[in-house]
Amino acid sequence: MDITQIRRDTPGVANVIHLLASGSALMPRCVSEAVVSHIELESLHGGYEAAEMQADSLNSVYDSIARLIGATAKEIALLENATVAWCQAFYALPLQRGQRILTCEAEYAANYVAFLQRARRDGLIIDVIPSTASGELDLDALASMMDESVGLIAITWVPTNGGLVNPAAEVGKIARRYDVPYLLDACQAVGQMPVNVVEIGCDFLSATGRKFLRGPRGTGFLYVCESWIEKLEPVVIDHFAAPWIATDQYELRSDARRFENWENAYALRAGLGKAADYALSIGLEAIQARVVGLTAQLREQLQGLPGARLRDLGANPCAIASFSLEALEPGAVVRTLRSRGINIGASDPSSTRLDAERRALPTLLRVGPHYYNTEDEIEQLVDALKTLIPTTN
Amino acid sequence: MDITQIRRDTPGVANVIHLLASGSALMPRCVSEAVVSHIELESLHGGYEAAEMQADSLNSVYDSIARLIGATAKEIALLENATVAWCQAFYALPLQRGQRILTCEAEYAANYVAFLQRARRDGLIIDVIPSTASGELDLDALASMMDESVGLIAITWVPTNGGLVNPAAEVGKIARRYDVPYLLDACQAVGQMPVNVVEIGCDFLSATGRKFLRGPRGTGFLYVCESWIEKLEPVVIDHFAAPWIATDQYELRSDARRFENWENAYALRAGLGKAADYALSIGLEAIQARVVGLTAQLREQLQGLPGARLRDLGANPCAIASFSLEALEPGAVVRTLRSRGINIGASDPSSTRLDAERRALPTLLRVGPHYYNTEDEIEQLVDALKTLIPTTN
Repeated sequence: MDITQIRRDTPGVANVIHLLASGSALMPRCVSEAVVSHIELESLHGGYEAAEMQADSLNSVYDSIARLIGATAKEIALLENATVAWCQAFYALPLQRGQRILTCEAEYAANYVAFLQRARRDGLIIDVIPSTASGELDLDALASMMDESVGLIAITWVPTNGGLVNPAAEVGKIARRYDVPYLLDACQAVGQMPVNVVEIGCDFLSATGRKFLRGPRGTGFLYVCESWIEKLEPVVIDHFAAPWIATDQYELRSDARRFENWENAYALRAGLGKAADYALSIGLEAIQARVVGLTAQLREQLQGLPGARLRDLGANPCAIASFSLEALEPGAVVRTLRSRGINIGASDPSSTRLDAERRALPTLLRVGPHYYNTEDEIEQLVDALKTLIPTTN
Repeated sequence: MDITQIRRDTPGVANVIHLLASGSALMPRCVSEAVVSHIELESLHGGYEAAEMQADSLNSVYDSIARLIGATAKEIALLENATVAWCQAFYALPLQRGQRILTCEAEYAANYVAFLQRARRDGLIIDVIPSTASGELDLDALASMMDESVGLIAITWVPTNGGLVNPAAEVGKIARRYDVPYLLDACQAVGQMPVNVVEIGCDFLSATGRKFLRGPRGTGFLYVCESWIEKLEPVVIDHFAAPWIATDQYELRSDARRFENWENAYALRAGLGKAADYALSIGLEAIQARVVGLTAQLREQLQGLPGARLRDLGANPCAIASFSLEALEPGAVVRTLRSRGINIGASDPSSTRLDAERRALPTLLRVGPHYYNTEDEIEQLVDALKTLIPTTN
């Protein structure tokens, strides 16, 4: 991996030490330029005309995303964010009163409130799969929970609040064995590790553009396994999803784009496609090795900080490091670091309430290094944190 | 109105004769620059950091949209397009089996397929309000259709396929008299005429950024009358709409942003705000007078074209002119004109099927002049059309 070239491709690295790919990463120049040049095209030719001029490359965004996750273009819906993507699948699933949704302790708030809404509205039961001692969802426990009443397995692969990586593919095997639909939230995974929906065995996968994939904000996508597409009717439709073919009749599209609607931000889509291509050109295995290495370095150095407590779960944690610092208010730490040109974030307990309550977590500091970061930047972060820690003498 | 200055503010007018504001208008420079400069900020600082840096101005977008339509900021949800906005209101309305939705003959396809979906799912009845001889929805007929079974009046103010302007405020009076919720699709109206939700008396109004408002693609908004906000639960939620306040509990926001979700395209929002401010600075009355005048000129000149047939309805048509040209295929006309630097569009019967079938409309040519267009550009369009019309001798 040519870090010099990668940093040359990334205007932000000259400006800031950005260690928050888990929030919203720095875009490579090819991404921001794709967005800007489409806006300029719209400005000079009109919005519809620009989309027509770029029709081929805009259409190829589906191919790029499909390549990124081992799917076919037909199975991809491009949506405005990961939550919309996830919701489009979740709410469309025809679950029956009394059926159980199995989820994990690390489940993301957005998904969980949707579970709560449907549980109340449709009489569903939410069952949480316990975790192992190392923090992953417990596969044996999951297997023992499987029976006729399970209507859906919906889990978060990598939680928002730390480095845990849930065993997505092993869950897929269990879902297949019991023929239960499997919805995987891959929001923090896509872009930082290889993703192959066939190997995972998920029926639906949602992800965002802005995090480790380095795409623009306001982009996301949904994968719907081909065998599911025509079985699901979105809960909300328009005439793109479902053309109005006769006065009293609409006909849903036969591809995953039945989960899209008519009007889109094509400029952002253009950027999303470039982000996928850029990640593929570097290689997801190489990216994973790099980001895991940088984050391991960070965790090791944090252990030397007085009052620092690592909070990541998982036997093999990924590129999100979470920790607390004794006697320091996380928001203030984030603000101070930002004023020194270092961007990290904080993770509130309400974003992963099950896990946060079980572990009595406070608001955590959250760092998401990306491959464009350097060992030296990690050290600068740790050095900056050192200056914030009150001395004990 | 200083047309010279307005054209100076609009990079596209030097490049193309753009007569399709009813599709997607040319952005003024302040709009495209707001989008681009936010993307650049994200590129240099990171996506979350850029949004925080611009928090005040991004928040003021709600005020700008509220000012534009005579609402309060609390009543505005910023969404990715008009259809999402409309759907968020429509699908949230708790209609009961057997209740009737009253709509108009000019209703837009996106809305109608949603009616069809809910009609089937929830056992609702769709009743179409007949039109008067001049084409507006018939207020007397509407009044005579009102009874206890009416659950919703949902109409399109200005249809996608022509200059008709439905009597939105008069419908509002009837809706108020019977205390029936009133959802107004103002997608083609906002930006070309004064809009005041209080004077209209609608409970919900949806609109897009990209058409006459001259905002970026991928933007739209929903107005929800304050008295309705807390009565409606969106059909799809996340933890922005409904923070996860306890393990088994979420709490919906108390403003219209309960219809939004967590992740947004802030760059596009920034552009939308500028578009609203720009329209307000010119003045909607002045804009209306200008666009109606240009479109009237076009209609008059089209009448001199052999084989041209105007298809607009309405006693006082607005800035969308629709027509057919004998023996000419509309798609080919659009393509040929585009190759000559003139942008117009076509309107397919399936986008307004009730009206199109009733009037046996073919695909129509559609022209939407904006105030940045000139009388000379209208003439150039008509001259170009003349060259396409086969001579009869």
